[in-house]
Amino acid sequence: MSSTSAPFRFTVERTDRDTAARLSTFETPHGAVEMPAFMPVGTLGTVKGLPPAAIRETGAQMVLANAYHLARRPGEEIVRQLGGLHRFMNWDGPILTDSGGFQIFSLAAMTTIDDRGATFRSHIDGSEHHVTPERAIAIQEALGPDVAMVLDHVVALPNERAVIEEAMQRSVRWAARSIEARSRADQAVFAIVQGGLDPQLRRHCAAELRAMPFDGYAIGGLSVGEEMDDMLATLDVTVPQLPDDRPRYLMGVGRPEDLLEAIARGVDLFDCVLPTRNGRNAFAFTDAGSIRLRNEQFKLDERPLDEACPCPACRHSRGYLRHLFAADEMLGPILVSIHNLTYYQRLLAEAREAIGQGQLGELLAAKRAGWSAAAR
Amino acid sequence: MSSTSAPFRFTVERTDRDTAARLSTFETPHGAVEMPAFMPVGTLGTVKGLPPAAIRETGAQMVLANAYHLARRPGEEIVRQLGGLHRFMNWDGPILTDSGGFQIFSLAAMTTIDDRGATFRSHIDGSEHHVTPERAIAIQEALGPDVAMVLDHVVALPNERAVIEEAMQRSVRWAARSIEARSRADQAVFAIVQGGLDPQLRRHCAAELRAMPFDGYAIGGLSVGEEMDDMLATLDVTVPQLPDDRPRYLMGVGRPEDLLEAIARGVDLFDCVLPTRNGRNAFAFTDAGSIRLRNEQFKLDERPLDEACPCPACRHSRGYLRHLFAADEMLGPILVSIHNLTYYQRLLAEAREAIGQGQLGELLAAKRAGWSAAAR
Repeated sequence: MSSTSAPFRFTVERTDRDTAARLSTFETPHGAVEMPAFMPVGTLGTVKGLPPAAIRETGAQMVLANAYHLARRPGEEIVRQLGGLHRFMNWDGPILTDSGGFQIFSLAAMTTIDDRGATFRSHIDGSEHHVTPERAIAIQEALGPDVAMVLDHVVALPNERAVIEEAMQRSVRWAARSIEARSRADQAVFAIVQGGLDPQLRRHCAAELRAMPFDGYAIGGLSVGEEMDDMLATLDVTVPQLPDDRPRYLMGVGRPEDLLEAIARGVDLFDCVLPTRNGRNAFAFTDAGSIRLRNEQFKLDERPLDEACPCPACRHSRGYLRHLFAADEMLGPILVSIHNLTYYQRLLAEAREAIGQGQLGELLAAKRAGWSAAAR
Repeated sequence: MSSTSAPFRFTVERTDRDTAARLSTFETPHGAVEMPAFMPVGTLGTVKGLPPAAIRETGAQMVLANAYHLARRPGEEIVRQLGGLHRFMNWDGPILTDSGGFQIFSLAAMTTIDDRGATFRSHIDGSEHHVTPERAIAIQEALGPDVAMVLDHVVALPNERAVIEEAMQRSVRWAARSIEARSRADQAVFAIVQGGLDPQLRRHCAAELRAMPFDGYAIGGLSVGEEMDDMLATLDVTVPQLPDDRPRYLMGVGRPEDLLEAIARGVDLFDCVLPTRNGRNAFAFTDAGSIRLRNEQFKLDERPLDEACPCPACRHSRGYLRHLFAADEMLGPILVSIHNLTYYQRLLAEAREAIGQGQLGELLAAKRAGWSAAAR
């Protein structure tokens, strides 16, 4: 199966034997992405602490940046004048920008929303801004990523059904306006399914959006504090409503186990701050569970974080990494961010290989055993 | 000319036509260093923000760490148990450690000094410590760098002649005890000439130390706020007193012009925090003078810091680098530190090439013209 319009092409090469997982390739003007894929978060046009060559070395093929943040600093016109986001970041691979819907509702102050758009005060300087679905597309067309996201209306969970439904319906109307507003053929636009944890609202939203010619479909409004089971149940009802021939992107998720569970439900694309944020806080991911490097027990530990990991951090001892954090040296956050991003990319590569062999369930069981053994 | 005992060998290959500059090689158990050389400062076993591969990529062959700081954090015994400083830092090239004489007198509180040694309170936790010349050697033998420095008595400048003389004489006595205390044949030990700005004291100190079997000679107590002319005048009287067949190391110096002037006076080795500290503060070195990236004028500047520079920072625009600092992103300090260290290494490589052609004076004149044109 192969779809979406040139210069984009989404090809599903293989589906898993026992799960809904799929092995696919998404071609963009800046190269192909093997999916399922994880995008490191480069909010302000930089994955915190990593030069582009280091991002590439983790195995990442596609990165995420944030249109809301870049429109505040340095401003989308400056990025455009400096050659667009790829040149700006010196990242020649695919880039996706989030529209900022989530940021407007989580970071901005005094937000008021009506059908025209959202008015809010900047989290940086308090200045007042107005954003519409059309303006969100225009910002992203100025920035120039390969994939732009529609502006959506995100609400906190739990919330009243009426509030969730109204925001979902508004997101659908805004999505339709985003399609009208787009003008760049070299930029894909993805819709975002909303609807909280309500199966009926999610199904309805997915059906409405599926009827519009989007290049991909995201599932938004999750990973906002709900239980893992609730998130997975929402995926169970939402993903089957999405077109088979478009990439599916679960926004802002998540922990390694969340990724594998979502992949098993047919999700193709992820982003999350966890590997970099945890890395800056001395918290390292491994197959044998997490390592808190600030713990005294690692002071004389000569072992790397992970014997099998090829990353630059794993050429050092845990004792050295602990020392860097104890001494407040910036190399600590840098190295453990690199390690965690490498861990995520290796996990996704393993998932792709397992799907190719029809064995994602086996991989999930094996990983879960390692993670939970250490958690005890 | 070739000297010092195995596994160390210092070979002067060429001297400049019109200056005292020399092109040389210093062989150590961890490889050779082409001199004149500049060591990036890795005080706590990390050049701030640079993984070892990035340090290597700047062109650095040898790095400096600090025994005073490492003895406080994480402690020299921990470094030893984690495999020694090379393994700890994952730097397989030559390493020199400063003894900490300068730090004890500049950072520590309530320092009291007598002939036995120095008693002081830690700048980290206020704990009381006692260090002797013998202990400084023992710490460095536990850390395991290729080159250890003797403990010296550093005093502030300007100061009374009697104070400077007493500290110089004590440094000479401590140097003699350091020779007695050393036990590792695989570690070179360098003496440190003191004596303030007084030609007679400097000459006397150099003559006393030259009579002892050191593997190299450093000039300490400079770059502490004195005028450049005073520093150069001190080099003029000190360097000729040092043995021709040993490396000469000017500690803690300096700006690009200081390095070339000192090289012209026969100095072989340098270290300084300037490229990394300035890099963290958005201040970049170039042949056309310094660039303060926080300036508004670089907001839309598409040019790299230096068209001819091969470093990772110079794959970005000045506008992007400015954005990183404006947004307080750690990639800014990382990239400009890399650029500045690359600038220093390229400058030293140019100096070596110029000496090889007998033209250091021409290089100095050309560089000075570029730096001062921009300063106007």
